[in-house]
Amino acid sequence: MTASEILTLDPTADVAQLTADIMDIESVSGNEKALADAVGAVLRSCEHLEVVREGDSLIARTNLGRQERVILAGHLDTVPLPHVQGSRGTVPSRWEGDVLYGRGATDMKGGVAVQLALAVALTEPSRDVTYVFYDHEEVEASLSGLGRLVGSFPEWLQGDFAVLLEPTNGTVEGGCNGTARFDVTTTGRAAHSARAWMGENAIHGVAEVLVRLRDHEPATVTVDGLDFRESLNAVLITGGTAGNVIPDRAVVEVNYRFAPDKTPEQAEEYVRSLLEGFDVVRTDAAAGARPGLNHPAAAEFVAAVGEEPKPKYGWTDVARFSAMGIPAVNFGPGDPLLAHSDDEHVHADAIRACLKALNEWLA
Amino acid sequence: MTASEILTLDPTADVAQLTADIMDIESVSGNEKALADAVGAVLRSCEHLEVVREGDSLIARTNLGRQERVILAGHLDTVPLPHVQGSRGTVPSRWEGDVLYGRGATDMKGGVAVQLALAVALTEPSRDVTYVFYDHEEVEASLSGLGRLVGSFPEWLQGDFAVLLEPTNGTVEGGCNGTARFDVTTTGRAAHSARAWMGENAIHGVAEVLVRLRDHEPATVTVDGLDFRESLNAVLITGGTAGNVIPDRAVVEVNYRFAPDKTPEQAEEYVRSLLEGFDVVRTDAAAGARPGLNHPAAAEFVAAVGEEPKPKYGWTDVARFSAMGIPAVNFGPGDPLLAHSDDEHVHADAIRACLKALNEWLA
Repeated sequence: MTASEILTLDPTADVAQLTADIMDIESVSGNEKALADAVGAVLRSCEHLEVVREGDSLIARTNLGRQERVILAGHLDTVPLPHVQGSRGTVPSRWEGDVLYGRGATDMKGGVAVQLALAVALTEPSRDVTYVFYDHEEVEASLSGLGRLVGSFPEWLQGDFAVLLEPTNGTVEGGCNGTARFDVTTTGRAAHSARAWMGENAIHGVAEVLVRLRDHEPATVTVDGLDFRESLNAVLITGGTAGNVIPDRAVVEVNYRFAPDKTPEQAEEYVRSLLEGFDVVRTDAAAGARPGLNHPAAAEFVAAVGEEPKPKYGWTDVARFSAMGIPAVNFGPGDPLLAHSDDEHVHADAIRACLKALNEWLA
Repeated sequence: MTASEILTLDPTADVAQLTADIMDIESVSGNEKALADAVGAVLRSCEHLEVVREGDSLIARTNLGRQERVILAGHLDTVPLPHVQGSRGTVPSRWEGDVLYGRGATDMKGGVAVQLALAVALTEPSRDVTYVFYDHEEVEASLSGLGRLVGSFPEWLQGDFAVLLEPTNGTVEGGCNGTARFDVTTTGRAAHSARAWMGENAIHGVAEVLVRLRDHEPATVTVDGLDFRESLNAVLITGGTAGNVIPDRAVVEVNYRFAPDKTPEQAEEYVRSLLEGFDVVRTDAAAGARPGLNHPAAAEFVAAVGEEPKPKYGWTDVARFSAMGIPAVNFGPGDPLLAHSDDEHVHADAIRACLKALNEWLA
């Protein structure tokens, strides 16, 4: 590859314009190479940074011997481009006044631009900083570039505190709930539906499962000062074989989003106890993450941002840092509810405010 | 076609052997021609019978000016041959001692053989008799040969009483329950399952529907002296869109098998009242049939058979006769629970007993 083939980013430009330039390099999961090349070129041009790359993931870090080290992390990939022709949530980006539209506007090119601007500008930060840019976040967890880096460069991912620059509307969202899925199966005995008394109806048998879920009051659990609201829901249901047969099987898929005070095993115990008497099989689970806001670096970060932190309800990669013993929060520009939508957009000022907050904390 | 291409049946042979000979002419729905040809040749050879044919359906009748006319009816087709190699429920038939195995052994070559033997033997029956042999019973109702005959030869299907020779284990099964299907739909509001309080769970909303169905006590209704046991069941259920989305829609398919004292409209009214407050749409309905056992011809028939009549729970073509104002019962050799199975079989004596009973009634 010749140098001219690497697209050029200007990290000293206005960070909102840098966001647009990054968005213009299409980077749907699996196609992050061009963007990783461009980001890598910027990072390697900085004498104050040490850089490694694996696949399309990059780590850059300062080595100033500071007392604390913080990690800023974000993913390079996006979900696929919109199917709807004429959608504004596509590539290349487009400005409408001060609002930037296009794929990644919310999730999470603004955060990546802030990381890159800080990496270049902060030649002497108050804390050592490790910048992580990774691929394959928007696909199955086994492909995650961050997961790969944890395995390949564990010593590069040591730190006292991590900030994941996922969109949070500019507030600090601490930790995240865990998630677990269960199949609850009822069985009966098939029979012709004209002679129902010869059989046993497995769909009628599921009534009690749904009643318990419907009547269950999900808890709100305070962890490290944040109130984590839980959710426990039937998300899918199937049952029966034909219109003239008494059903002999029904399956309810249940999703439990549990506060980070519980392990997946404790979450499972809770669901088993609620659905006692039924056949419950756990099919999937991911631990949550405690917000760790009692850590000094975290407290100073929250003070620098200047807004009351909130809990994160959805599962994010902060849980990977948490699993390594590193407290982590989400903090980034853009409305998370717009993520993955065909109307992704972000206000230029939101990106600039995020850069300013992190700069004040680290400069 | 030359005469030699028509397979020959001997209606004066033992009726059990005649059954085996009929089974050996493969007649899966849509392929009834060879059997209809063979049956037609026998009927047309009888000087005491008047015969019409349409497609692969045949009607033959005596015209002796008797006070009453009875109809004996049966279908020529079978369900498809078994998928399982080496199954005994296939074609050609096979004797194991006095038990006849093969496709149609139960449903309903024994009945067809009895009809054919009677048609030939009863040159001067005590009542005028109309013999109906029809195609396409085992497939969707719109293809039914009997339905077609009702439209093309209505005057040939007049009568005081009808016997459908479907398998009933040799007892009289009077009338039949009706059947109706309903889609019960609940709706909610989709949301991410990590923020369930932003949505409304349509699967939880279905709990009350299932509780009412589970707790419902189906009625037993006495009609013309027979006790018709009803069934009301959820037979299919689907709901939800993905494992991380609060479901905004769930659908329960409900099947109501209702006694023949009700019209389909009254059955619908009953289900709507039970599921009041829910979105209920009727998707399908077929009226039942009153057994009509108070009719003199029916009473004499029951006396000739000599066993206590029972109600028929499944829907059968007796309902088509009932709709024409003709009381009708099911009466035939073989266990109805073996119908459509890969183990279809019938005892030779059951076929002979059926012939004997009808012969005593009509000779």
